[in-house]
Amino acid sequence: MAKPRKRRLLSKLKPRKQSKFERKMGKAPGTITYMGKREDSESVVNIMEYNQDELNTSNPSDINSIVAHRDPPLTSWVDIIGLADENFIELVGKRFGLNSLVMEDIVDTTQRPKIDEYDDYLFGVFKMLYIDEETSEIVYEHVALVLLENCVLVFQELEDDVFSGVRNRVKNQSGRIRTRGADYLFFALLDAIVDNYFVVLEYLNHRIETLDELVYQNPTQEIVQDIQDLKKQVLKVRRWISPVRELVGRLIDSENPLITKDTKVFLRDILDHSLEINESLQIYREMSMSLMEMYMSNMSNKMNEVMKVLTIMASIFIPLTFIAGIYGMNFDHMPELHWEHGYLMVWIIMIVLFIGMMVYFKRKNWL
Amino acid sequence: MAKPRKRRLLSKLKPRKQSKFERKMGKAPGTITYMGKREDSESVVNIMEYNQDELNTSNPSDINSIVAHRDPPLTSWVDIIGLADENFIELVGKRFGLNSLVMEDIVDTTQRPKIDEYDDYLFGVFKMLYIDEETSEIVYEHVALVLLENCVLVFQELEDDVFSGVRNRVKNQSGRIRTRGADYLFFALLDAIVDNYFVVLEYLNHRIETLDELVYQNPTQEIVQDIQDLKKQVLKVRRWISPVRELVGRLIDSENPLITKDTKVFLRDILDHSLEINESLQIYREMSMSLMEMYMSNMSNKMNEVMKVLTIMASIFIPLTFIAGIYGMNFDHMPELHWEHGYLMVWIIMIVLFIGMMVYFKRKNWL
Amino acid sequence: MAKPRKRRLLSKLKPRKQSKFERKMGKAPGTITYMGKREDSESVVNIMEYNQDELNTSNPSDINSIVAHRDPPLTSWVDIIGLADENFIELVGKRFGLNSLVMEDIVDTTQRPKIDEYDDYLFGVFKMLYIDEETSEIVYEHVALVLLENCVLVFQELEDDVFSGVRNRVKNQSGRIRTRGADYLFFALLDAIVDNYFVVLEYLNHRIETLDELVYQNPTQEIVQDIQDLKKQVLKVRRWISPVRELVGRLIDSENPLITKDTKVFLRDILDHSLEINESLQIYREMSMSLMEMYMSNMSNKMNEVMKVLTIMASIFIPLTFIAGIYGMNFDHMPELHWEHGYLMVWIIMIVLFIGMMVYFKRKNWL
Amino acid sequence: MAKPRKRRLLSKLKPRKQSKFERKMGKAPGTITYMGKREDSESVVNIMEYNQDELNTSNPSDINSIVAHRDPPLTSWVDIIGLADENFIELVGKRFGLNSLVMEDIVDTTQRPKIDEYDDYLFGVFKMLYIDEETSEIVYEHVALVLLENCVLVFQELEDDVFSGVRNRVKNQSGRIRTRGADYLFFALLDAIVDNYFVVLEYLNHRIETLDELVYQNPTQEIVQDIQDLKKQVLKVRRWISPVRELVGRLIDSENPLITKDTKVFLRDILDHSLEINESLQIYREMSMSLMEMYMSNMSNKMNEVMKVLTIMASIFIPLTFIAGIYGMNFDHMPELHWEHGYLMVWIIMIVLFIGMMVYFKRKNWL
Amino acid sequence: MAKPRKRRLLSKLKPRKQSKFERKMGKAPGTITYMGKREDSESVVNIMEYNQDELNTSNPSDINSIVAHRDPPLTSWVDIIGLADENFIELVGKRFGLNSLVMEDIVDTTQRPKIDEYDDYLFGVFKMLYIDEETSEIVYEHVALVLLENCVLVFQELEDDVFSGVRNRVKNQSGRIRTRGADYLFFALLDAIVDNYFVVLEYLNHRIETLDELVYQNPTQEIVQDIQDLKKQVLKVRRWISPVRELVGRLIDSENPLITKDTKVFLRDILDHSLEINESLQIYREMSMSLMEMYMSNMSNKMNEVMKVLTIMASIFIPLTFIAGIYGMNFDHMPELHWEHGYLMVWIIMIVLFIGMMVYFKRKNWL
Ligand SMILES: [Mg+2]
Ligand SMILES: [Mg+2]
Ligand SMILES: [Mg+2]
Ligand SMILES: [Mg+2]
Ligand SMILES: [Mg+2]
Ligand SMILES: [Mg+2]
Ligand SMILES: [Mg+2]
Ligand SMILES: [Mg+2]
Ligand SMILES: [Mg+2]
Ligand SMILES: [Mg+2]
Ligand SMILES: [Mg+2]
Ligand SMILES: [Mg+2]
Ligand SMILES: [Mg+2]
Ligand SMILES: [Mg+2]
Ligand SMILES: [Mg+2]
Ligand SMILES: [Mg+2]
Ligand SMILES: [Mg+2]
Ligand SMILES: [Mg+2]
Ligand SMILES: [Mg+2]
Ligand SMILES: [Mg+2]
Ligand SMILES: [Mg+2]
Ligand SMILES: [Mg+2]
Ligand SMILES: [Mg+2]
Ligand SMILES: [Mg+2]
Ligand SMILES: [Mg+2]
Ligand SMILES: [Mg+2]
Ligand SMILES: [Mg+2]
Ligand SMILES: [Mg+2]
Ligand SMILES: [Mg+2]
Ligand SMILES: [Mg+2]
Ligand SMILES: [Mg+2]
Repeated sequence: MAKPRKRRLLSKLKPRKQSKFERKMGKAPGTITYMGKREDSESVVNIMEYNQDELNTSNPSDINSIVAHRDPPLTSWVDIIGLADENFIELVGKRFGLNSLVMEDIVDTTQRPKIDEYDDYLFGVFKMLYIDEETSEIVYEHVALVLLENCVLVFQELEDDVFSGVRNRVKNQSGRIRTRGADYLFFALLDAIVDNYFVVLEYLNHRIETLDELVYQNPTQEIVQDIQDLKKQVLKVRRWISPVRELVGRLIDSENPLITKDTKVFLRDILDHSLEINESLQIYREMSMSLMEMYMSNMSNKMNEVMKVLTIMASIFIPLTFIAGIYGMNFDHMPELHWEHGYLMVWIIMIVLFIGMMVYFKRKNWL
Repeated sequence: MAKPRKRRLLSKLKPRKQSKFERKMGKAPGTITYMGKREDSESVVNIMEYNQDELNTSNPSDINSIVAHRDPPLTSWVDIIGLADENFIELVGKRFGLNSLVMEDIVDTTQRPKIDEYDDYLFGVFKMLYIDEETSEIVYEHVALVLLENCVLVFQELEDDVFSGVRNRVKNQSGRIRTRGADYLFFALLDAIVDNYFVVLEYLNHRIETLDELVYQNPTQEIVQDIQDLKKQVLKVRRWISPVRELVGRLIDSENPLITKDTKVFLRDILDHSLEINESLQIYREMSMSLMEMYMSNMSNKMNEVMKVLTIMASIFIPLTFIAGIYGMNFDHMPELHWEHGYLMVWIIMIVLFIGMMVYFKRKNWL
Repeated sequence: MAKPRKRRLLSKLKPRKQSKFERKMGKAPGTITYMGKREDSESVVNIMEYNQDELNTSNPSDINSIVAHRDPPLTSWVDIIGLADENFIELVGKRFGLNSLVMEDIVDTTQRPKIDEYDDYLFGVFKMLYIDEETSEIVYEHVALVLLENCVLVFQELEDDVFSGVRNRVKNQSGRIRTRGADYLFFALLDAIVDNYFVVLEYLNHRIETLDELVYQNPTQEIVQDIQDLKKQVLKVRRWISPVRELVGRLIDSENPLITKDTKVFLRDILDHSLEINESLQIYREMSMSLMEMYMSNMSNKMNEVMKVLTIMASIFIPLTFIAGIYGMNFDHMPELHWEHGYLMVWIIMIVLFIGMMVYFKRKNWL
Repeated sequence: MAKPRKRRLLSKLKPRKQSKFERKMGKAPGTITYMGKREDSESVVNIMEYNQDELNTSNPSDINSIVAHRDPPLTSWVDIIGLADENFIELVGKRFGLNSLVMEDIVDTTQRPKIDEYDDYLFGVFKMLYIDEETSEIVYEHVALVLLENCVLVFQELEDDVFSGVRNRVKNQSGRIRTRGADYLFFALLDAIVDNYFVVLEYLNHRIETLDELVYQNPTQEIVQDIQDLKKQVLKVRRWISPVRELVGRLIDSENPLITKDTKVFLRDILDHSLEINESLQIYREMSMSLMEMYMSNMSNKMNEVMKVLTIMASIFIPLTFIAGIYGMNFDHMPELHWEHGYLMVWIIMIVLFIGMMVYFKRKNWL
Repeated sequence: MAKPRKRRLLSKLKPRKQSKFERKMGKAPGTITYMGKREDSESVVNIMEYNQDELNTSNPSDINSIVAHRDPPLTSWVDIIGLADENFIELVGKRFGLNSLVMEDIVDTTQRPKIDEYDDYLFGVFKMLYIDEETSEIVYEHVALVLLENCVLVFQELEDDVFSGVRNRVKNQSGRIRTRGADYLFFALLDAIVDNYFVVLEYLNHRIETLDELVYQNPTQEIVQDIQDLKKQVLKVRRWISPVRELVGRLIDSENPLITKDTKVFLRDILDHSLEINESLQIYREMSMSLMEMYMSNMSNKMNEVMKVLTIMASIFIPLTFIAGIYGMNFDHMPELHWEHGYLMVWIIMIVLFIGMMVYFKRKNWL
């Protein structure tokens, strides 16, 4: 009996569109397939080369002048914006000696955050989170970082703003960034990504507080949808953010020569922040559960109130109507009907009954 | 008192059919008993032998030409389709030197995913998951992989399609598969199995999204059944998929000489994907719980609405009916009845009452 | 205020019977106290001695001929059935050199599963689970295994059937059991116990499926009791079964010379099965929670339906009755009463109202 | 809006009494402050000195004859009853060479169970649990054990009964206690404490079973209070009991020379029991949750029944009353009123309607 | 459909104020930015220098006389109150050789509790919790401790009272504090912070007990808000307190030469207390969940009672009113109307019906 029913509901399913995953199936691992939505974007390259005294910036478009920055005397930050051009990414990857699995992950925008250590480079994938001003949704941007000796490669989908603070510090020689090597640059970029998470957390916090007020003032079914939507957003954000903690922890414990001991002290600062972020997400999760509980208790409260009104009205007037019904009967012999004060007496009885019921409900605290 | 009742319900239990497990009880461990449903299928053997320059395929039916591929100069992929012929499986197993427990597990389609290391081979059991197009159920196929030196044995129940991508890559010399040994083939097969899991995850995701819409539009008891069915499917899928993560992790950490260091980099790619899969399953689990919560809140919302209609109708008309009842009484002396505008006045009173109630309910936001 | 109330309820508590635990309190550890229910049973001893070529069975009743099997050239299986005779157990234990704590645990039928390693023997306690055909309850039997060099002692409460498969294999020389030592016998007995757990799991699974159907067809309060009873059974079974996993895992990792490397491969097979059992129990647990959720949603669905019927009936007829009441009033001057088609018009008004309400409820999807 | 409301509720809070914790604040760690309730009790000292052949008991009141038992040729058990006399405790502690933190914890009756290893002694804090016969509450008594070489110090609040079994065994030379050293005495006392926990578990189990029956027979609001009270008791008991498991496990693994290898075998027996206790507490927790679920489902069941009665009564009689109302109208021209069998026909219509409704409700299974 | 709805609700969101986190974004790590609310406070410095024989106190305002206490022959406690003056903090930090990340965290009042080990100092951040007497909210104060050789730096926002006990002990030479070094001072300050947590726990406990009573006496929607508010406070407190446990545990296990073995015994005492605190917080969490369950069961209980009253009133009077209605009909031929005792008989029938219903409801236990 259950089976035919299920088919019926499933027939209502909208047809699934062919997914990117299916396109990728059967292909060799390491096949470079861009998984994002900005398929027509072109790749742009920004390069900054610096040490304590010097700073050169350039926007080379041919591959040879890009790769020239691989082993320079200066520290260089090669920023590649736009991941849809798979051939270009492959070219860059090959010339920088990256594993084909790394290249695959650079353009795989669904890849979860991770840090992989290879023989002479470190490869990290992270998510930058933004609040879309129009839809108020949380959107993410995939970013891949490669730390080579003296060089950091950054692959991202859009012109950045999360990294602009770091870029300014390099330009203005503020902080210690110009005095340190590529590993500090790698840290500074990761730090910028993690600092940005706090903005998203504040947005979530703000939504929870707003819902917390609304759920008391005017609990509608819309609120339930919003609460559930919030829960989903917390789940999604947790997925993109929470691995960072373990990754950074592992990086601190690793003995990779690319990360100097000085920089590890700074990575510990990121670790602090990711612990804090994970705790906040845990608390938001519990708070969104609380919101649902409050909604349900509020609903059951309202139901109670509705039922009380019904019960009071019915309990008072149904007996009175019965009495009126009695004296509306047409029997030949109903002596009360002929009493002089019969009508008055009925009124008195009714009023006494009415007051009695009111007192009863008052005592029960229903009024 | 509780006891007699329980027996009654249990008497409604359909008789259990004798299970395969009972058939197997008391038998020696290592007894080869096919536990699947395709009991009449015959075993077919496909063999591919290759190195960078050469590729031979064959379908031998006698056991000696199969075993001839055990230690060839080339890498060989021996694919055995159909597991019901226990004698044939035993013959193959013995000639390839497999432990009798391994042979038992090859045909034990209920065996959970695992990887066991033996002295000179690696044995893995996995599940391939498919969506049955007709019933929209998730079905699984048991597959056993044995990695020997230079040779991979594959045991499966049905003609494969999950592995067809790998087979094509071998045939077309695409990717690096022809240039590498048996361990890379083992990885490539496992990778094909895991890649396929994403298709199942997308199906689950699609079902959740569809239910998420239905639960608002038209929450019926059917929806509850569907939500619970979804929860069960997530549980089932989690059971077949989630062990892969730990297994692959252990394989990467093991020092088995059959797995080269180069291949471990690729296994790390599978590890990435199984982490992602486990996270997705966790999220689906929480979302199916959310669906149930939304259903319940929606139900209680609807109940509230029903009760409000009842309360409004009853609260308005019961008092009015009472008033009509009063003047339907037959007392001899009811002065109001003889007033010229008595009837009009009653109407006025009723209309005032009616409007008063409407205002009251409006204020309470019930209208 | 809460305190006097509580005492009232507690006074309804049936007096607790003096427990076995209280009897045991204050006694020295190692005091042999049978904790089971079959207090009048006598101990029977079955002995099988075998190697690849030879097999002797005997039922000695005096202690010396039992102990003679302690260090024989053959492998011997000493099976002691009936644990109530504390003196006999102590005699056997002392002659086989068992610690007094071991003897205590042999007859302590409440002891949870465990494996303890002593200097020259291994001591294990397990539970065999059965379905009582009459009450359909899950009952357990306490069994203790001692692995000495060349000898396995089995202590159990009842004539066994779980071990009959192993006994037959010894008798019929089937499998490899006659070619191996006491450690393989120990494994084979443990394997028989664990294999039997699958039968209990199938019973639980069958109950869940039956309840799953009933909960849709006819959700009564009896179903709730059954669901809760099921949850309790899953909890109980989990308690007796789930420690096996860790125990066997520890045994595989231990370096005890009593367990040969060959037998460890077989123990890994038991480990597989206990992992599977634990997963199943976890799934049953979640499913019994799902059952409860379904019951509750079904109940609230039914309530909704009841309320709709009430609301529809009341909302339709209360206003109509009010109209009838109006024209049942006895005012002198009610012009409508004297109109020629007054009665007809009232009917028309009522029918229009009736149809209007029906349309309204239809639109609300309540009909 | 929420803020002023909250203050109102908080104003209903009973004033908190100044707590012991506040008294202790700012004092140096190691300050001896008795935290229990029996502030006027005096300390009594019982001493037993024994070896296999000899047994001396004494009740010295001066500190020197107490300390004389510190390093005797015999094993001595110094039992100090009554902890309120802080000066006396300090005197004893100093003379036995105890750290001031140890002395603080001896009289800190809120201290959670723990075992601390010091250079030449072991210090343990445990809770003895009792059922208060009058209030049926679970009460606990704080006990501190110190294991020195050849000597065990016991600090407790009341004349003991948990330890009376051990004392009898020493007196009667039963078991092995007289043949072993101070570490075995330490174990025997801990064993007595843990054995006593089973009595408390049985009490909890008995309460759960009783509530399980009551919740079906007569689910009142009192039951909810009892279930919640039970949950709290399980939480409280878990807090006092569950650390024992880890503590004893750590003691077994430690290499402290005060604990001989022989005694560790006995500690493993305690470990067994604490595992069992923790499992039971976990099960009780889940059962008390089940009780609550059953209560809620029972309530919603009852509500359903109430609603059905209302709906049936209203649905049957409201339409009938409407019909009666129709023919109670006073129109001049109502032909039915003048038909000879009009009254009979109305009765027939009503009876048909009545039967129709009954059949309808029967079919819906509401009757 | 869901999307436009969501935007509507979001439009109700109050605009978020620009946060401190956004101000800090893009800045270099180690930038000293005060994150607290007391932005206009000035820094005050109290210094105590002591050994067993000597005690000097001073309030220097110039930086050189502060730093003079860095390496004195005595132990010095430098207490800096007021963190808003970022320049001053930087000056102090630099002169004491602190890392810029440490200085950042000293003034970052949102920093979670932590202990970081640097080459020649230990840096700890903790939270002091207070009950704000006016709002009855739990407020926290950020405090940073730095342990150098012979010197402890304390950074806090307000004039302290948590540390006044320690200060008194130093002044009065009570306890052992004057006889020990800086590490003992560090411990004593941490101990004072942790001791204070018990006061907060008692406040939470008191609130739970009060709500526990209120939830039975008068469960209003306000109670729900209070319960949820309590849950949030427990979450918040857990966040600030619970890391302490792990931090102190790690400190005990570390081999930092700044912490002597003697002081580790005292740190173990703090560890004890943090274990206890974490357990209490866990129990409070479960109790606040219990409170919510009790509220919900109480609500559903009340609803049941309301429904019973309605059902009883309606079920009794609706049939009676129907009977009255029957004899209010105006048929020409209604023989009962003309019977001499017709009216009496109707009364008798009604009274019998009434009594019957009462008995029925009594039997159902509804009265
Ligand atoms: Mg692939
Ligand atoms: Mg990927
Ligand atoms: Mg960008
Ligand atoms: Mg940062
Ligand atoms: Mg920091
Ligand atoms: Mg919560
Ligand atoms: Mg078997
Ligand atoms: Mg199997
Ligand atoms: Mg296949
Ligand atoms: Mg893949
Ligand atoms: Mg990858
Ligand atoms: Mg990939
Ligand atoms: Mg005992
Ligand atoms: Mg025992
Ligand atoms: Mg036991
Ligand atoms: Mg048996
Ligand atoms: Mg088996
Ligand atoms: Mg197997
Ligand atoms: Mg579930
Ligand atoms: Mg203190
Ligand atoms: Mg304490
Ligand atoms: Mg005592
Ligand atoms: Mg014991
Ligand atoms: Mg034992
Ligand atoms: Mg629950
Ligand atoms: Mg920053
Ligand atoms: Mg910070
Ligand atoms: Mg302060
Ligand atoms: Mg303290
Ligand atoms: Mg202490
Ligand atoms: Mg609870």
